[in-house]
Amino acid sequence: MQMNVTPNEKLMANAIRALAMDAVQKANSGHPGMPMGMADVATVLFNRFMRIDPAAPKWADRDRFILSAGHGSMLIYAINHLLGYADMDMDQIRAFRQMGARTAGHPEYGHAEGIEMTTGPLGQGIATSVGFALAERLANARFGDDLVDHYTYVIAGDGCLMEGISHEAIDMAGHMKLGRLIVMWDDNKITIDGDTEVATSTDQMARFAASGWHVQACDGHDPEAIAAAIEAARQDPRPSMIACRTIIGFGAPNKQGGHDVHGAPLGAEEIAAARAFLGWTWEPFEIPAEVYEGWHAIARRGAEAHAHWQGRLAASPHRAEFEAAQDGAVPALGPAIEAYKAKLSAEAPKVATRKASQMALDVVNAAVPTSIGGSADLTGSNLTKSKGMKSVTADDFSGNYIHYGVREHGMAAAMNGIALHGGFKPYGGTFFVFSDYCRPSIRLAALMGVPAIYVMTHDSIGLGEDGPTHQPVEHLAVSRAIPNLSVIRPADAVETAEAWEMAMTSRTTPTMLVLSRQNLPTLRTAHTSENLTAKGAYLMRDPEGRQITLIATGSEVEIAMKAADMLSAEGIEAAVVSAPCFEAFAAQPEDYRAAVLGDGPRIGIEAALRMGWDAFLGREDGFIGMTGFGASAPAPALYAHFNITAEAVVAKAKAMI
Amino acid sequence: MQMNVTPNEKLMANAIRALAMDAVQKANSGHPGMPMGMADVATVLFNRFMRIDPAAPKWADRDRFILSAGHGSMLIYAINHLLGYADMDMDQIRAFRQMGARTAGHPEYGHAEGIEMTTGPLGQGIATSVGFALAERLANARFGDDLVDHYTYVIAGDGCLMEGISHEAIDMAGHMKLGRLIVMWDDNKITIDGDTEVATSTDQMARFAASGWHVQACDGHDPEAIAAAIEAARQDPRPSMIACRTIIGFGAPNKQGGHDVHGAPLGAEEIAAARAFLGWTWEPFEIPAEVYEGWHAIARRGAEAHAHWQGRLAASPHRAEFEAAQDGAVPALGPAIEAYKAKLSAEAPKVATRKASQMALDVVNAAVPTSIGGSADLTGSNLTKSKGMKSVTADDFSGNYIHYGVREHGMAAAMNGIALHGGFKPYGGTFFVFSDYCRPSIRLAALMGVPAIYVMTHDSIGLGEDGPTHQPVEHLAVSRAIPNLSVIRPADAVETAEAWEMAMTSRTTPTMLVLSRQNLPTLRTAHTSENLTAKGAYLMRDPEGRQITLIATGSEVEIAMKAADMLSAEGIEAAVVSAPCFEAFAAQPEDYRAAVLGDGPRIGIEAALRMGWDAFLGREDGFIGMTGFGASAPAPALYAHFNITAEAVVAKAKAMI
Repeated sequence: MQMNVTPNEKLMANAIRALAMDAVQKANSGHPGMPMGMADVATVLFNRFMRIDPAAPKWADRDRFILSAGHGSMLIYAINHLLGYADMDMDQIRAFRQMGARTAGHPEYGHAEGIEMTTGPLGQGIATSVGFALAERLANARFGDDLVDHYTYVIAGDGCLMEGISHEAIDMAGHMKLGRLIVMWDDNKITIDGDTEVATSTDQMARFAASGWHVQACDGHDPEAIAAAIEAARQDPRPSMIACRTIIGFGAPNKQGGHDVHGAPLGAEEIAAARAFLGWTWEPFEIPAEVYEGWHAIARRGAEAHAHWQGRLAASPHRAEFEAAQDGAVPALGPAIEAYKAKLSAEAPKVATRKASQMALDVVNAAVPTSIGGSADLTGSNLTKSKGMKSVTADDFSGNYIHYGVREHGMAAAMNGIALHGGFKPYGGTFFVFSDYCRPSIRLAALMGVPAIYVMTHDSIGLGEDGPTHQPVEHLAVSRAIPNLSVIRPADAVETAEAWEMAMTSRTTPTMLVLSRQNLPTLRTAHTSENLTAKGAYLMRDPEGRQITLIATGSEVEIAMKAADMLSAEGIEAAVVSAPCFEAFAAQPEDYRAAVLGDGPRIGIEAALRMGWDAFLGREDGFIGMTGFGASAPAPALYAHFNITAEAVVAKAKAMI
Repeated sequence: MQMNVTPNEKLMANAIRALAMDAVQKANSGHPGMPMGMADVATVLFNRFMRIDPAAPKWADRDRFILSAGHGSMLIYAINHLLGYADMDMDQIRAFRQMGARTAGHPEYGHAEGIEMTTGPLGQGIATSVGFALAERLANARFGDDLVDHYTYVIAGDGCLMEGISHEAIDMAGHMKLGRLIVMWDDNKITIDGDTEVATSTDQMARFAASGWHVQACDGHDPEAIAAAIEAARQDPRPSMIACRTIIGFGAPNKQGGHDVHGAPLGAEEIAAARAFLGWTWEPFEIPAEVYEGWHAIARRGAEAHAHWQGRLAASPHRAEFEAAQDGAVPALGPAIEAYKAKLSAEAPKVATRKASQMALDVVNAAVPTSIGGSADLTGSNLTKSKGMKSVTADDFSGNYIHYGVREHGMAAAMNGIALHGGFKPYGGTFFVFSDYCRPSIRLAALMGVPAIYVMTHDSIGLGEDGPTHQPVEHLAVSRAIPNLSVIRPADAVETAEAWEMAMTSRTTPTMLVLSRQNLPTLRTAHTSENLTAKGAYLMRDPEGRQITLIATGSEVEIAMKAADMLSAEGIEAAVVSAPCFEAFAAQPEDYRAAVLGDGPRIGIEAALRMGWDAFLGREDGFIGMTGFGASAPAPALYAHFNITAEAVVAKAKAMI
C-alpha cells in the first residue's frame, strides 16, 4: 500500500535540511551531516508509508520509526515539528541541545512524543528494533491483523552496523523472519575517522543476506527509487535492509560528502551556500505554509487510519484483553503470590534461588498473560522456562518463551524493544557475570524507564568450579551503580517470590534479579502478607538488647543467621538484616532505616566486593566478602578459602565489640 | 609446510578424549563435549602444523593456539600434558577444577604454560586472536620473516560466533587481511538450549566471506580432510575460517551429538561404553607410551625449529631491538617525561586533559618505540594520534596507529591480544561512557594482568550537549570496581603526563585514563621530579591549621581549589587533595594516607556518583557530585544545574564545620 505522493517532496526534505543546519548552528553543537544526508529517505518514508497519528502518539498499531543513528537527532525533531506534534513547536527546535528542552542532543524517550526510544549509543537502535518487530508479531498472533498490523522502520548508520550488537540483532531477526522490520542503512561511506574504508571492508548486503535478510540498494536521493525499495521491502516476508546510497550533509555544497560535516555546525558561510544550492529562500526557523501542508497531510492520513482502527477495536471480541495488555497492570498477581508465599513458608524448601525463581515463575506466568520469558542459551541453568511455556518460532508467534541464543546484548536490547512496543512484560536470563555483555542496553533501559527484568543466575563464587571468568565479584556494585535500576538479591524462596512481584509490578524501573546456583534454606518460615523484600532491607532476626547488626544479602543471609546463633551462644546478641534491594531500602523513611540498622556496630556480609556498601557501613564498620577475583574450586572450598563463613563473622564481631 | 604424519593420530586424539572424560568425571564438573568433539582437529593441528617448544613456552616466534571455546579447557590441558609441558603433570589433570590446581575450570592465563590467554566468556578468544595476528604482522614488518613468521590458530564454538564481538573481530581481521589467522569453527550444531537451529540460521561461511575471509568446510573427524583444509588456509592470503563438521562428545556412543554431553560428566556407565567404542583399553589417567611418543615428537620438532630460530636471532642485526621490544621496559620514558613536566609547569597551558594526553603522547611515543595507538573511530575526539604516527593498513604494517572502527569491544579484545603476543604496548581510545561496550574485555585484561591502556575521554557531564547517553555518571565507580585495574583521572596536563608514565611502565595491571573534553588550567605549576599521581592522592593545597579537607579528581580539582580560596577568604582553612588514582592511594603506607586525608571533616568532589568513595569518606562526610543521569545542555549550565560548583562546596563546608 503506497500512500499519496505529494508534488513537493523535495521541498519537504529540504525543510528537514534547513532546520537541521540552522538548529545545529544556533546551538553551536550537533550533527548536521546525517539529517541532511537522509532527508530524502526519511521524507519518502513518512510521506508514502508511515502510518502514525501525531494527535495520538501512543496509538498501539502505529508504525514505529527508530533513529538508530541517534546523533542525527535533528532529523526526528524536524520531522515531528513538521508533522505537527503538539509538543514540538519551533521554540523547541530553537532550543536544540539547551537545558530543559525536549530537543536533547540525542533523542530521549519520554522527552517528546514520537520518539520511540532513546538512541545515541550506536547499534542500540537496530538491536532494540528487533524487539519492537518481535512484539508486533507476538501481538499479531494473539489479536490478529485487525488490531495489530504495523511496521518497524529503522535508520541506521555505518557505526550501527560496525558495532557487535548489530550481528546479534541481524542474526536474531533473520532467524525469526521478522518481515515487518525494515532497516534503511545510511550508506554514506563516511565515519568520524574518515572514509569507511579506513576501518571496514565488509560487504554489508552479503552479510545481511547471510543471515536471511532481503537486501536491496538504492539511490538515497531519488524519491522514486527509495519508494520502490521500501515497497519491495514491505512485500518480502524476510526482514529487509535497504542500502541507501547517500551523500552525508547533502545540500552543503562545499562540505557535503566529507567527514567534517558529521558532527559540527556548518558555519554561517556554508549555510548561506547551502540555502542557495538548495534554493531554500526562507529565513532560519521559517517554514513556508506549503511545506507544512505537505507534512500535515501525512498526519491527516494517519488520523484517518487511526479512526478506522478504533472502529475495529470497538468491534473486536479481543478488546478487553487487548486494552488490559496495553495497560500493563497485573491485578491477578498479588493474590497468587501471597498464596504461594504461604505455601513456601509452610514447606520451607531448600532450593537455589534460581530454582525458586522458576517455581515463582510457575505462579507469575499463570497470573500475567503478557509475560514473555527467555534466556541467552542458558534455559536449563537460568531456569527461566516455567510450566507450560511455549517457545516462539519463526512459524508460530503464539508462544511466550524466546531462545535468544548466545546473545546477551541483543537479548537485553530486544527486551527494551518488547517493553517499549507495549503489550508485554519481557524477562530474560543469563549468568550474572555476563551482565557485562549487556550493560549498554541495561543502562538504556534504566535511562528510558523501561521495566525489563533481568534474571541473573550464578551470582557469586557459589557457582564453584567454573572459576573467575564466571564468578561475579564486582557485578553487584556495578549494577547497583546504574541509576534507576532495582537490583534484588533474594536470600530464599520467599524473598525470590517477593522479588518477582516487585519486578512484575514495576512500571518505570528495570529490575535485576541476582540468584544463586547453590541451594539455600528457606529462612522466612513465618508467613507475612507484606512484601518485606519491597522494603529493601528488614530485620530477619531482632533479639532483645542487640549489640551488633549483621547485614547480608542472598546466599550470605544464611551465614549471618548462623553467625548470630553462634554469637548468641557466647552471650552476644546480634540482629540480622536481610537486605535484598539497596535501592528500595534507600527509598524508605529515615526512621525505618534507622530502626533496621540500629545504633551499634555493623558487619556487612556479601560474597562480593565492599564497594556500594557505604549506604550501610561507615569507615568503622566491618565487611566480610571478596577483595578480588575468585578461583576455580567447589563452592564450599571457595567460601572457606575466601573466609566468607559464619566463623569469620563471629571472629570479626567479637573483635568489634 | 606440512610436518610429519605419525601413524597413530587417532590414538593421539583418543588420549585427549580419555583424559577429558576421566578428568570431568573425577571433578564431577566440567565440559567433556567439546574436547571429545574437537580432539581430531586439535590433534591434526598440533601434529602436522603447530610450531611450539614446550621446553621454551615463551619463545617469541611460536605459533599461538587460542581456545576460544574455553569451557573445553580439558582439550588444552590434555594436549599440554601429552606434549610434556613441565608444569602439567598427571597430578594436575587429576586435580581438574580443584582449589589451587593449574587446571582451572576455564583456561587461565598465567596458571600454566602454553595457555596464551584466559578464555571462557564467549567470543573473547576469537576477538583477542585478531590482536595476536595483528601483532605478528606488526612485528614482521619491523623485524622480517627471519624473526617473526608464525600463525595464530583458534578453536571457536557456535557461541563464539553468535556473540556480537565476533562480528567486530571478523570485520577487523578481514579488513586488515590477517592471513595468518586461522579459525577452526567447531560446527557441531549444538548449543546449551538444544540444536543451534533453535536460535540461529546464519550461514556462517557466507558471513565470513562477506567480511573478506577465506572459507572452507571439512569433516572434523577425517584427519586428511582437516590437514588439507589447514594447509589451504595457511596458503591463502586472507584470514581463514574452517567449518569443522563434528559430533559433540564424539566417542560417547549413547550421548554424542546431543546437548547433554556439553557441560556435565558422562557418568561411569557411559565412560565405560566410550572406552569400548573407542577401543581405549587403558585405565583412567593412564596413557600408553606410544601415545606419549607421538605427542613428544611434536615437541621435539618444535625444539628443533626453535634452535634454528635462535641461530637466526643471534645473527640478526635487529637482535638488540627485538629483545628490548620483547622485554617491554621503557628506559627512555622517565627522563623524557620529567623534562616535559618541567616545561608544562613553566608554561601552564589551559587545555582539556584529552588534549594534554595527546601532548603527552608526543613525548611518550617518541620514547617508546613499541607503542601502538588507536581509537574506535574517535581519533579526532580522543586525540590518540600523536605527531608522526602512521596508520596501519592491510598493505603496510610498519605503522603504529590502528583505526579500530566503531568497535569498542573488538578494540579492547585486540589490545589484549597485542599485549599478550608481546613486543608491543597497546593503547586505544573511545568515549568513557562506551567503556560499557568493552567491559568484558577490560575485565579479562585485569584478570590476566595485561597492561593495556584505555584512553577514555569525555569523562563527565563536562562533555555538555550530547546528553545523558554520552555522559558517564556511574563509570568511575564501575571501573574502579574491577580488581587490578588502575583508573586515573588527572586534574591537569602535569598529572596527565604522570598518568601516561604510570600506564606505560605498568607490567601486570591495565590502566584506564579518564580525561576531560573541556579545558582545565594547569594546577601543578611548581615542578616536582616525583610522580605525584603515582601516589594516588596527594596534598595540592596544605594550609596551616587545616579545618576541612576537600578531595577531588580530574576537572573537579579546579573547583576544589577555588572553593578553598573562597573559604580561606572567610577564615576557614581547607586542604585540597588531588586524588587521581584511588587504587594507587590504597597501596600507600597507612601513615601517608592518614597525613594526606587529615583528621577533620572531608568533602569529596567528583562529577559522578558517590559510589566508590567510601575509601575516603565516612557516613558523616560530605560529597558534591551526581545522584543520577545527566542532561543535554552546555557544560557550564550542567555544572550549575547539578550544583557541582565552588559555591556548593563552600556552603557544605561551612555547614559541616
